[in-house]
Amino acid sequence: MSLIQEKVNQAVQILKEQDIDLWLTFVRETSGVRDPVLSFLIGESDLTWPSALILTKRGDKIAIVGNLEKEAIKQLDVFDEIVGFDTAVSKILRETITRLDPKQIAVNVSKNNVHADGLTHAMYEFLVEYLAGTPYPERIISAEPIINALRGRKTRTELARIQKAVEITDEIYKRTFAFIKVGMTEIEIANYMHDLMKEYSVGYAWPRENNPAVNSGPNKVVGHNGPTEIKVEPGHIIHFDFGVKYDGYCSDIQRIAYVLREGETDAPVEIQRGFITIRTAIEKSREAMKIGVTGNTIDTISREIVTDSGYPEYMYALGHQLGRVAHDGGALLGPLWEKYGDSPNQKIEAGQVFTIEPGLALSNYGYIGLEEDVVVTEEGALYIGDPQREIVLLKG
Amino acid sequence: MSLIQEKVNQAVQILKEQDIDLWLTFVRETSGVRDPVLSFLIGESDLTWPSALILTKRGDKIAIVGNLEKEAIKQLDVFDEIVGFDTAVSKILRETITRLDPKQIAVNVSKNNVHADGLTHAMYEFLVEYLAGTPYPERIISAEPIINALRGRKTRTELARIQKAVEITDEIYKRTFAFIKVGMTEIEIANYMHDLMKEYSVGYAWPRENNPAVNSGPNKVVGHNGPTEIKVEPGHIIHFDFGVKYDGYCSDIQRIAYVLREGETDAPVEIQRGFITIRTAIEKSREAMKIGVTGNTIDTISREIVTDSGYPEYMYALGHQLGRVAHDGGALLGPLWEKYGDSPNQKIEAGQVFTIEPGLALSNYGYIGLEEDVVVTEEGALYIGDPQREIVLLKG
Repeated sequence: MSLIQEKVNQAVQILKEQDIDLWLTFVRETSGVRDPVLSFLIGESDLTWPSALILTKRGDKIAIVGNLEKEAIKQLDVFDEIVGFDTAVSKILRETITRLDPKQIAVNVSKNNVHADGLTHAMYEFLVEYLAGTPYPERIISAEPIINALRGRKTRTELARIQKAVEITDEIYKRTFAFIKVGMTEIEIANYMHDLMKEYSVGYAWPRENNPAVNSGPNKVVGHNGPTEIKVEPGHIIHFDFGVKYDGYCSDIQRIAYVLREGETDAPVEIQRGFITIRTAIEKSREAMKIGVTGNTIDTISREIVTDSGYPEYMYALGHQLGRVAHDGGALLGPLWEKYGDSPNQKIEAGQVFTIEPGLALSNYGYIGLEEDVVVTEEGALYIGDPQREIVLLKG
Repeated sequence: MSLIQEKVNQAVQILKEQDIDLWLTFVRETSGVRDPVLSFLIGESDLTWPSALILTKRGDKIAIVGNLEKEAIKQLDVFDEIVGFDTAVSKILRETITRLDPKQIAVNVSKNNVHADGLTHAMYEFLVEYLAGTPYPERIISAEPIINALRGRKTRTELARIQKAVEITDEIYKRTFAFIKVGMTEIEIANYMHDLMKEYSVGYAWPRENNPAVNSGPNKVVGHNGPTEIKVEPGHIIHFDFGVKYDGYCSDIQRIAYVLREGETDAPVEIQRGFITIRTAIEKSREAMKIGVTGNTIDTISREIVTDSGYPEYMYALGHQLGRVAHDGGALLGPLWEKYGDSPNQKIEAGQVFTIEPGLALSNYGYIGLEEDVVVTEEGALYIGDPQREIVLLKG
């Protein structure tokens, strides 16, 4: 069974579980604006003309597409009914919906999860217009719960790909630590990592401009910005944020190293204390990640460990889901801030993969941020790959 | 000047020309849903938190972004005012709009052009909600005319990249024609072209699944589907649709070859007649492509040449614009069908790059489709690269 078949079958199960009659993905020219759920429904292909992909609780799998794309959709062996058109989709769509007569039509509109929000405003207006005069515009609901479950609950195939992505990330980190010398620039280090990515034939979990982020020492502005000409010096913390994409699935891992100064055999106590704080915050968060707990509960645990230790609060969420993209949406280990919407109130489910990534800055040395990837199971959250348990020490 | 700076300055000029006070691009987590105009405003980077990119007729260039992304935006050297936030964008956005007090707020909502339709329905609702109680929700208009002009009018830098993409496409075609042997499968030919793409370090103008399309002989279903195990045989027309991406800009070119049967020194008359029809349709269309003419006028010319010659009507538009994506939106050389909206009524402008791609099927031989890329200038439309003037003959 292909991964797409696997996920589409899972989607039908989710419709049953959530008692939603029909899920409609309505798109056009997806090379321009690509609804993120398409990866689960048709893979990497594009749909050119206005197209409707319909799944129902009863198990119908219907694709309404331009005639020139019928064959490509047929080859996926996913949709049982493929309806083609040449000039206009409106009538066929209205007729198909009327025939199926759903009590709910879930569409990809979501305030909380961008990955469930692929319907553009104009396409929403088209849909309402095409269904005008029927009872169906009234029955439109958000497909957010469907998509959250579909993206969140990783199948075995998906998990295996994430594991492989993490493994390769780990190997690249190890080789990079062996490569770094004092005097190298952040950019040189990033270039080396890019070369290794080619060697391992992996893609970028997010754009290469800031992947990896390489932050050497206290003068670097840390955030979603890329490596610079700043040179590695003794006494620097070097912080990395790096993720690869293996067969469509991502890793997202932060690591730190410390460059020893003359006479030093270990990192200064201040750094050790910061490292232990972050390490503890991660471990305690992971331990608390039981099925049914809200993401906000977990965020609070980590946030308090960091602030109770006297460090300033990090101004981002503790962790996000991971999958086809690095920031995969749905339940979030986050604070209740406007920008996060309702996502931190959602409950942790089995099969979800999360990052855990608290951080703190030391004004004399640099940024301490670690990020581990974990998978939620019936037995709690398990690390994918080995977490960083010790500061990596580099010779000065 | 970077290409982004070039295009943002052009955008301000377009706002002046169209007398629109303010253009707002409002996005979030663009690794999930990416507004296509971002490529022109911030390049390939992503924005994670709800972010507003504002350009005004007066020349203001304002970015409201999460604090962790301020530095990345600063490095672009495009925005004069960069406002950061940690938890919520709503207040800053409302205050900024109120301060600028625009008579119109153009947002990325468009029924006609998907590339001007990057605002999702939920983000539209957020915007209206954030501006509630001000006069501004009433002043929201579509940014389609701005984006059509911005994407359509290629700068010199953009044109040079397209030219290079076309050049490389042409070289790959030539080497592929020299490579093809009877008995090879469509997939083998496509693999060879993929290898050449690596050699030339170019990307895909559309997904590799059907790029190139390779259609050998009369039994292949032609459309947006990929190469198959069908083998090249004497008496086959082999039809290709292929496009590469060079430095962010695309080519999109169709070619045909004929595989000679024993004793043949030229293609059968039926094929020659089909080829000349398509070639003529392209040439007559190109000649008619003067500034100010509607795309529909051009489509009609080509469509009539094909149908007047007794062939069935091709059920797609004659040509689309070309740029950052293969189907670049805006004015379209197309028929007035529902699925094309108002795009075929829009007028041709200088600086636009179009494909011209009529086609016809011969039930005994295969599909004859040619596609040429042209740029509109004050002197009319000029071919980019050499058009196919003769059938490529392959030894049987």
